[in-house]
Amino acid sequence: MPHSPDAASEPRAFLRSLFDAAVAAVDPARIVPRHLDGLPRRHRGRTVVLGAGKASAAMAQAVERCWDGPIEGLVVTRYGHALPCERIEIVEAAHPVPDAAGLAVSRRMMELARSLTADDRVIALISGGGSALLTLPADGISFEDKRAVNAALLKSGANIGEMNCVRRHLSAIKGGRLGAACGPASVLTLVLSDVPTDDPAVVASGPTIADTSTVANAIEILRRYKIELPPAVQAFLAARAAQPVAAPTALGPREHRMIATAQHALEAAAAVARAAGIAPLILGGSIEGESRDVALVHAGIARQIAQHGQPARAPAVILSGGETTVTVRGDGRGGRNMEFALALAIALDGAPGIHALACDTDGIDGVEDAAGSLIAPDTLTRMRAVGIDPRAALARNDAYPPFAALGDLVVTGPTHTNVNDFRAILIQADQDT
Amino acid sequence: MPHSPDAASEPRAFLRSLFDAAVAAVDPARIVPRHLDGLPRRHRGRTVVLGAGKASAAMAQAVERCWDGPIEGLVVTRYGHALPCERIEIVEAAHPVPDAAGLAVSRRMMELARSLTADDRVIALISGGGSALLTLPADGISFEDKRAVNAALLKSGANIGEMNCVRRHLSAIKGGRLGAACGPASVLTLVLSDVPTDDPAVVASGPTIADTSTVANAIEILRRYKIELPPAVQAFLAARAAQPVAAPTALGPREHRMIATAQHALEAAAAVARAAGIAPLILGGSIEGESRDVALVHAGIARQIAQHGQPARAPAVILSGGETTVTVRGDGRGGRNMEFALALAIALDGAPGIHALACDTDGIDGVEDAAGSLIAPDTLTRMRAVGIDPRAALARNDAYPPFAALGDLVVTGPTHTNVNDFRAILIQADQDT
Repeated sequence: MPHSPDAASEPRAFLRSLFDAAVAAVDPARIVPRHLDGLPRRHRGRTVVLGAGKASAAMAQAVERCWDGPIEGLVVTRYGHALPCERIEIVEAAHPVPDAAGLAVSRRMMELARSLTADDRVIALISGGGSALLTLPADGISFEDKRAVNAALLKSGANIGEMNCVRRHLSAIKGGRLGAACGPASVLTLVLSDVPTDDPAVVASGPTIADTSTVANAIEILRRYKIELPPAVQAFLAARAAQPVAAPTALGPREHRMIATAQHALEAAAAVARAAGIAPLILGGSIEGESRDVALVHAGIARQIAQHGQPARAPAVILSGGETTVTVRGDGRGGRNMEFALALAIALDGAPGIHALACDTDGIDGVEDAAGSLIAPDTLTRMRAVGIDPRAALARNDAYPPFAALGDLVVTGPTHTNVNDFRAILIQADQDT
Repeated sequence: MPHSPDAASEPRAFLRSLFDAAVAAVDPARIVPRHLDGLPRRHRGRTVVLGAGKASAAMAQAVERCWDGPIEGLVVTRYGHALPCERIEIVEAAHPVPDAAGLAVSRRMMELARSLTADDRVIALISGGGSALLTLPADGISFEDKRAVNAALLKSGANIGEMNCVRRHLSAIKGGRLGAACGPASVLTLVLSDVPTDDPAVVASGPTIADTSTVANAIEILRRYKIELPPAVQAFLAARAAQPVAAPTALGPREHRMIATAQHALEAAAAVARAAGIAPLILGGSIEGESRDVALVHAGIARQIAQHGQPARAPAVILSGGETTVTVRGDGRGGRNMEFALALAIALDGAPGIHALACDTDGIDGVEDAAGSLIAPDTLTRMRAVGIDPRAALARNDAYPPFAALGDLVVTGPTHTNVNDFRAILIQADQDT
């Protein structure tokens, strides 16, 4: 393990080293090869890679680099996330709102799947973000209809599991439909999870994993969040709800493996902290809730550590992952991790010796050019000194500009992996105040 | 320590025993006497008890019972919270929305305070809820004006510290003004804290504790939560903001002690758990945030314990206190603890071996006749079996009827103490599912 910066004298660098260790632990280049060890490189049929997600180009590159037999394939990733591949075609498309490129590649991927025989093997490389990238509306629904529902869901406060349930039922490719199209071929799915439950059917809406949810579930979610439906969608769902489910056709062998999760990332950060003599407190890899309220709870726990040495003794670092949500109220800039960081700074109100980092492990918090941000005891003071009202910024969901103004953004560029949020709150020892 | 019910076979009774231990640890009858040990029972002047809060009648009774010298006084508590006293007058008034009885007793208390001399000693008994009970509008503001602002604040999502800051600046008795009226007399204030920071100036709006907040702070809070102000209040605040602060007059000796806090209650519950072989994880005594989101975070931590043995190994119990808030969206019944419990049950979605209790330590969750409620893995199933949709109930802030229907309310009656919320989440060992 590399020597990490000193938590007492270099808290920012220390927190950054935890984040870097977390991301490295879920880097496809390191973890994909070991899951391909048992697969024969040469066999009667074709070896075809299919994939979708922010990390899927990196996963495809990792496959190519360790694969010495014939291989081909088609993988879709987010704009800016492609990596050079020689034998597997990498296509870029839009995320989080799907576009025509995603639609076109989804059609081609379904065609490729349908061309496979019982002699063929599929390696499916699935990661977070794939839900928007694999976009093929169910019969009778237009691309625009589906996009409208998706955009409304993203703003509604629905969690990722709920959003994906709806997406699956409006799709011709999600919810196991790509896997079904592979028919008699064998399919090994490698999943890099960005969802709280680490449920393979939920990551990227499980294109190769049979769906256990029903159209009734999807309808309930749309009602719960008061999503306005285009008439065609309404008609489609009503017809589906009234229809009997078709019997499944005979499929080739199916296997899936969760190759990277939030837990892996948190454990790696914990190991770095432990080696530096800082007690790690892993709260959980599946923390959900409104960002600003999740921040309040984290602040309460940090205060408890500082004041009472519970549930851990300082110096300690609280580690948590999962996916918080932001109910958009204002028109500001910033993702959920920056919003968390700003709310945390406000809740801690300058509490001495408490520093924190909140970042998206994919390197892009929301739609910004930063992974997240850092806070320190002087964050609010420094914001006010440059004319920023932290509470007003939070009220309009505008966390990006304040952190940009302070130089406290964490900028990594795309990490080519994605196990969702990463939060680390360092409580230093012995604050004599 | 009494033998507690078995956590594996009697999880409900076990959780209830933790709550009972928590409440007992902050029971005025047990803790008040030791703080009066050093006070002379007989001296030249009068010994006068002044007090306000849900626990203050119980505190007054505890004073009387251990006091063998002359004593007199006036204490206001919430309707239903009076206890028989012989020498100290106990008056009841309305909470959380003040009424005329509170107004009248506040006037009398100020008169009593002004009658004191340098020979007199005051024992001030302050506890949560006193902010509504001690109600005396500042000059020029009508009782109705103040009540309107207060009602709007309670629905706004403002936290208790913010609400009390505003209340202090619209009051002629809060924010140290009662203490100032005691003039040359000595004042010992015993505080039973129901606020996250355990700041004596915040509990019951600190009637005997000098206020460090400013009228500008109050104005900022009213703006932040978009509280509509009656014209008289607007005029008063504008005038105050423009005025120079008056120099303080000479006062007699002042002392205050925090005699009971959420931390004391949590530690007592932790001791019971530890004795029963259940690892206690005290998350914090000052957890704030929207109830349903705080529940999501607690659910994430409980899942982490069940699945990964972090940050504690099962069997374990998560303990937390503080004051969550409920942004009222629907017209349902139920307090913030029941709302937390319902949201927690929904988030856990039947996770095996996880049981929880969420109660207000004062015995009254919101305006209901129960302290809170219990959940178990079968809570949602049982609700649905009696025709209740748990998510729909949560959406309209209607947690009371579902728990009442299941017989899962925790009913204690008024406990005569108040250190705010108490939450205990039991994660049993070895769930083979």
